[in-house]
Amino acid sequence: MLARAERLLARAHPADLAPLLSDLRPEEIRTVIDMLFRHHRAATTLKELPVEMLPQIFEALGDQRLSAVISRLEIDDALEFFEWLPEERRDAVIGLLPEHKRFELRKADLYEEGSAGRVMTTSFMALDEKMTAQEAIDAIRASGEDNEGILYLYVVDGDGKLSGVVPIRRLVTAPPDRSCRDLMVLDPISVTADADQEESAQLVARYNLLAIPVTDPEGHMLGVITVDDVIEVITEEATEDMYHLAGLSDEDRVFSPASQSIRKRLPWMLVNLGTAFLAAWVVGIFEATLDRIVALAIFLPVVAGMGGNGGIQALTVITRAIALGEIQFSSGLRAMGKEVAVGSVIGAITGVASGLFAWAWRGDPTLGLVMFLAMLLTMAVAGIVGAAVPLLLKALRQDPALGSGVIVTTFTDVFGFFSFLSIGAMLLDKVE
Amino acid sequence: MLARAERLLARAHPADLAPLLSDLRPEEIRTVIDMLFRHHRAATTLKELPVEMLPQIFEALGDQRLSAVISRLEIDDALEFFEWLPEERRDAVIGLLPEHKRFELRKADLYEEGSAGRVMTTSFMALDEKMTAQEAIDAIRASGEDNEGILYLYVVDGDGKLSGVVPIRRLVTAPPDRSCRDLMVLDPISVTADADQEESAQLVARYNLLAIPVTDPEGHMLGVITVDDVIEVITEEATEDMYHLAGLSDEDRVFSPASQSIRKRLPWMLVNLGTAFLAAWVVGIFEATLDRIVALAIFLPVVAGMGGNGGIQALTVITRAIALGEIQFSSGLRAMGKEVAVGSVIGAITGVASGLFAWAWRGDPTLGLVMFLAMLLTMAVAGIVGAAVPLLLKALRQDPALGSGVIVTTFTDVFGFFSFLSIGAMLLDKVE
Repeated sequence: MLARAERLLARAHPADLAPLLSDLRPEEIRTVIDMLFRHHRAATTLKELPVEMLPQIFEALGDQRLSAVISRLEIDDALEFFEWLPEERRDAVIGLLPEHKRFELRKADLYEEGSAGRVMTTSFMALDEKMTAQEAIDAIRASGEDNEGILYLYVVDGDGKLSGVVPIRRLVTAPPDRSCRDLMVLDPISVTADADQEESAQLVARYNLLAIPVTDPEGHMLGVITVDDVIEVITEEATEDMYHLAGLSDEDRVFSPASQSIRKRLPWMLVNLGTAFLAAWVVGIFEATLDRIVALAIFLPVVAGMGGNGGIQALTVITRAIALGEIQFSSGLRAMGKEVAVGSVIGAITGVASGLFAWAWRGDPTLGLVMFLAMLLTMAVAGIVGAAVPLLLKALRQDPALGSGVIVTTFTDVFGFFSFLSIGAMLLDKVE
Repeated sequence: MLARAERLLARAHPADLAPLLSDLRPEEIRTVIDMLFRHHRAATTLKELPVEMLPQIFEALGDQRLSAVISRLEIDDALEFFEWLPEERRDAVIGLLPEHKRFELRKADLYEEGSAGRVMTTSFMALDEKMTAQEAIDAIRASGEDNEGILYLYVVDGDGKLSGVVPIRRLVTAPPDRSCRDLMVLDPISVTADADQEESAQLVARYNLLAIPVTDPEGHMLGVITVDDVIEVITEEATEDMYHLAGLSDEDRVFSPASQSIRKRLPWMLVNLGTAFLAAWVVGIFEATLDRIVALAIFLPVVAGMGGNGGIQALTVITRAIALGEIQFSSGLRAMGKEVAVGSVIGAITGVASGLFAWAWRGDPTLGLVMFLAMLLTMAVAGIVGAAVPLLLKALRQDPALGSGVIVTTFTDVFGFFSFLSIGAMLLDKVE
């Protein structure tokens, strides 16, 4: 049994091993890690694990082994490991790393989280403009087995500044004595290390690149973001947006421990509760009216619920457009105008439908009119708010998705309750 | 002015031209298209446009020009163009295409939408196992300028079946007389043409590939999905999930015409309205109780609103995990168990908070108890439903995101109203 497991571990692709580990008990994890170390596959396998498994793995690894794993990781993966390592162990593990790795880590740590500098790899090949195609090929050969990852060669001028890029496939068919200067693509698209990693990923996607060079502000090569990291960034950012719209934290994954999910969700749910009571307070203002016309209580959630849906739709369209770079603040007004128009028309149609329905059910045409007016108003406002909130957050350099779901639905709830009850009080409540 | 625009068009990257076109009037679009044709850049530019602009562009292009553009597109882009072309023009445009393109289109049309066959490109290089590295390089050179897109060479055996892959960067450093059989990676990861495009994209992401070969069930090479298409698939699928959670259609983009957005959103909003009335009907059952205890009307939306939020959180976590392949139906029960636990604990905490608050506000401890019990129950149920709905949809081979937002919030609304009002009626309504 164990021998079979060992053969499997020795031969399977690291990405396929990761899911197998997720169902094991702590002592089994320890056995598997022993096997991985025997086959020199610990680093390649562990970096493929979903991040929420890392704390368990770190516990099973001693500081010594953990530092051995980390010293074999690329710098972006190493940084991610440290983010998940309990603070009290960090110094010990860093102390066990080889000097050059510690130096690299310190340098990478200078870049802000979410920046291009954090996600780049520092292993790339830089060539002198004057080198020939054959010399470039010799340089690749000399670099050893690492060359599997090389897709572009970066050409630097006398000052070490990036001046061009030679796609490796161009080297294949180039005459051996041709200089890199002749072969290179000029003015390659690049980003600086402090650029946003999402925007860097968008550049790679937009221009169909396989990697994008990262430079300092003067144009000196610092590293490269490769397309596999770009896919990871795009996937992570999409998760983040979906999560933020639902008021979830990034670290709250499907199999993270329940205690962690509770800790992460609770603050947000308490904020939600506060806004729900705010809406309840608005309803409370109309207590006397509700006391006299109980029908209003029955239809109360309809208008606010529809407004919430409409607001979330506008919010989703705009948030996604911002994430995909399809919209700027300047074209934001146009987008807002459209959402208001869409909200108003849908509000009018669903207003007529719900008005007729309420009239038929309760036999009161005025109640139908109240439904219609409140629905029209609330849906139009939902369009404005749903579009405006993410655009404003973006203009304030905040994450357009973060918290915007709560803001929008609070607004539509409060406004929906208020419009329905105040119109209802005006048209129906003739007691006083 | 026009001359400057023309210089810009002739030099800018196609991906940069697309956004510039989106703000133009119809007659300006016509002028720009004339320029693009003069510079032979029409096809490369137009395929970068966001899809919602295509109808406008198609109107500006006659059938003749449109078929000229389409004949220069790769087959996956050509198919997308046809999807957006009004049906009455399709036959005319297809009739104007060169014979080989028509044949390719007919073949690609055999593959279902969303399948690997639809998104693959059919331009790839297949080599015989016995060819040497030098012969392979000569073949690349003979293929002309198209070689910029080549990242892997596909090695086929005597029956034309895929037997291995030679990364082009390996050719660079290989001895010229080495055979492809010696150079190739054996058993390359591949997909069949009817595979799901999202799963194919996940394979590329998971194994950090630059392209994945597409074969028929017997293993004959049909095409290749490249990493730029993978990024597009991943981005589109993320958009689709976010959209479906909000009850939006894929074709409802930020700058698609308002009339189209209304048409797309209306059916869904009418379904929503129906479910809202269903919830109202539940409230109506308790009309007599509400008539006597108006305080219940005030707090009515709080419990249901919180339940809706909790349900959407569970739904988002599970939907995203399914999309990322982090969860199978088998581990689904574990995920559901966790969501119920999380929901119950958060329900207990927010239940205590809201119970105390309601007691303090209205001076009635029993009302507080009603709040607590209803919140606890509703949040636990929200966890179950939020997790179960996407898992069930997945098990039924449906899109786990499509419609699940509405199902979950309808359920939490109905259950929230019912639990709050029935517990309220039991504990507070002592009249009869």
